[in-house]
Amino acid sequence: MILNFIAHRIRQLRQQQNVSQEKFAYNIGMDRSYFASVESGKRNISIINLQKIVTGLGVTLEEFFKGI
Amino acid sequence: MILNFIAHRIRQLRQQQNVSQEKFAYNIGMDRSYFASVESGKRNISIINLQKIVTGLGVTLEEFFKGI
Repeated sequence: MILNFIAHRIRQLRQQQNVSQEKFAYNIGMDRSYFASVESGKRNISIINLQKIVTGLGVTLEEFFKGI
Repeated sequence: MILNFIAHRIRQLRQQQNVSQEKFAYNIGMDRSYFASVESGKRNISIINLQKIVTGLGVTLEEFFKGI
C-alpha cells in the first residue's frame, strides 16, 4: 500500500542523514506531529507536502519512487 | 511548480491513450470534475488519488515522475 511504502522510504532516507524526526520536520518547516503521522503511514499526504519532504531528503521524486 | 508538472504529465499520457477526460475519469472511478481540476493544475492532489490516476495511465510512479 502506497502510504506504507512512503512511510518506510522516508524513514530510511531520514535515518541515512542521522537526523531525528523532530530535527528533520523543523528543517523543512513542517509540523512535527504531522511529519510523524506521515512516517507512520497514517497520512494520505498531499503532493506539495510530499515534495517538501522529498526535497528535504535530498532526492528527486523519481528517485524517491524508485521501483514502484 | 509540482501541480503544473503533474497536470501536464497526466494530460500528455492520457492523450497518448486517445481517451477523453470523461472516459478516463469513468475508467478509474474518479469524479470527472475532480479529475479535470487535477489536469488543470488546480488541485493539491493526495498521493492515493495520484496513484489511482498514474496506475490508470499505465505507468509506474517512478516513470510518472521521470526527470523531477
